[in-house]
Amino acid sequence: MKAGLLYGPVHEDLALVEETLDSLKQVDFAPLAEMMDLALSGSGKRLRPALALLSATFGDYNLELVVPLAASIELLHTATLVHDDVIDNAATRRGRPTANSLFRNSTTVMLGDYMFAHAAELVARTANIRVIRLFAHTLMVMAKGEIGQDMTAYDSRQTVRDYLFRINGKTASLFATAAEGGAIVAGEPEEWIQALHGYGYNLGTAFQIVDDILDFTGDEREMGKPVGSDLMQGTLTLPSLLLMERYPKSNPVTKFFAGRRKQEYLDQVVAMVRESDILEESYGMARDFCRRAVEAIELLPDTEARGTLTDLTEYVLDRHS
Amino acid sequence: MKAGLLYGPVHEDLALVEETLDSLKQVDFAPLAEMMDLALSGSGKRLRPALALLSATFGDYNLELVVPLAASIELLHTATLVHDDVIDNAATRRGRPTANSLFRNSTTVMLGDYMFAHAAELVARTANIRVIRLFAHTLMVMAKGEIGQDMTAYDSRQTVRDYLFRINGKTASLFATAAEGGAIVAGEPEEWIQALHGYGYNLGTAFQIVDDILDFTGDEREMGKPVGSDLMQGTLTLPSLLLMERYPKSNPVTKFFAGRRKQEYLDQVVAMVRESDILEESYGMARDFCRRAVEAIELLPDTEARGTLTDLTEYVLDRHS
Repeated sequence: MKAGLLYGPVHEDLALVEETLDSLKQVDFAPLAEMMDLALSGSGKRLRPALALLSATFGDYNLELVVPLAASIELLHTATLVHDDVIDNAATRRGRPTANSLFRNSTTVMLGDYMFAHAAELVARTANIRVIRLFAHTLMVMAKGEIGQDMTAYDSRQTVRDYLFRINGKTASLFATAAEGGAIVAGEPEEWIQALHGYGYNLGTAFQIVDDILDFTGDEREMGKPVGSDLMQGTLTLPSLLLMERYPKSNPVTKFFAGRRKQEYLDQVVAMVRESDILEESYGMARDFCRRAVEAIELLPDTEARGTLTDLTEYVLDRHS
Repeated sequence: MKAGLLYGPVHEDLALVEETLDSLKQVDFAPLAEMMDLALSGSGKRLRPALALLSATFGDYNLELVVPLAASIELLHTATLVHDDVIDNAATRRGRPTANSLFRNSTTVMLGDYMFAHAAELVARTANIRVIRLFAHTLMVMAKGEIGQDMTAYDSRQTVRDYLFRINGKTASLFATAAEGGAIVAGEPEEWIQALHGYGYNLGTAFQIVDDILDFTGDEREMGKPVGSDLMQGTLTLPSLLLMERYPKSNPVTKFFAGRRKQEYLDQVVAMVRESDILEESYGMARDFCRRAVEAIELLPDTEARGTLTDLTEYVLDRHS
């Protein structure tokens, strides 16, 4: 499915978001302009800004408010990816070189900070204090989530419940904020704002689960990273956790973490996950979250945008990269 | 001079800022609480929050607005220090261990992000869009300044003019924002807002020049870092630049950068700077900026707070650590 069709009624307005993001690359300092270009020109699907726009259609849809908000959300997302790359020392992301592989660690940290600042500036253009506070709160939740992931790296004493808590911080919170923020700037009734928050939270959770499934099934070239890369970095995701649940006494995940992280154990994890019905169970959980996302917005008017939001849950489940 | 006397009429209100900062350490996640405590319990003089409070005294001084603003400024400052430590791989700052020496690089980046988010949340409590945008803009200038410093590390093709531009981003901009922000939330006339901005900018520039002088003259134990540490990290400051100006054909600074950064050349730089009148010339420049700071606020009412702001310029020139 093409992105254009995917985002239905807000397709054209997303081009304005893109223009706003492009304008940020015009910096009077060449090295920074180059870095911004590199960081912002990824193959991102702009799913989060689309959510902000779609949510705003149920209220007073004002381009001068929703476009900066949507751009701000995407920028916040990109800034966290830049900082994530410092963390992982990742050399590529989705097949493209990361800022951190081209610049010093320190420069990459500052590039992320610059982007956060720009994101804050963009969200301030909405002149909506509630959205600004929501935005700040989301960054707090995201940073806290990343710190939690860092602290529990290579620690096998984790459960599916911990995982769901962790991916809320990592992914779902920003999806929820995109949808909630759009509804707030459009001045929608409180009930709708909460409904769209619920939609975003559930969609984001499903999105991350599928992401974590793709780490086991995806094509290395298409994904731009090797299969099993999460585990390699010490991050337990749903498939690994389900494998551990099924073989609590002895399993290659615990062995991989406890031992010297031998490739042999990692290969065993990937093989066992693929050969079992663990991926099916994981998809089942993602489908449940998508169902809840759709249910959350049932109280909204039955518009084309609501149809698009419903279709997006299918897209999130079907994507392959 | 004791800090209490130093900050005159806002001395007691600074305790409220401290309480606000203390409250941020109460996080429901022990490792983060510990990190926040470490980062915020430094021996900081709280000069920036004091500026915000003092500036606000010329208008409608409302504690519910100025205290969050002042705390936000200090938090933004601390967050940049945390990210700076990632950069330098500094093990101590002012004699205390840095976050980065106790936690992983990645965790330190996220701690800084968490603090930025909290700072944004605090400044949003002012419900003043102009201050929020000023805040975002300041972070952009600061990050850009740090990137510039990073890009020109160990590059001897720099001038005093580049230096002044660089320390604007690094230090003066936040001093200016503290003073300007206080005036804005207090609803002061535009002329006063600009005057206080000018005061902050000039005071901050002098502050950084003195900081850079202390890197040559300070007591290693008192400063918590070795003499000449800026140069060691590739950063050209005013004394080094003046030395290069005086000996354009051959000087130990260029040799230190060009060669394999031999301690011998660094020792030569320190000795030559100390034996010349370069430090006197540097102090002269700092004094000029302080004079301009005092001139900038001459149009303000002659209150106790204005007297304190004037006295602060003396303190900035006289400090020894």
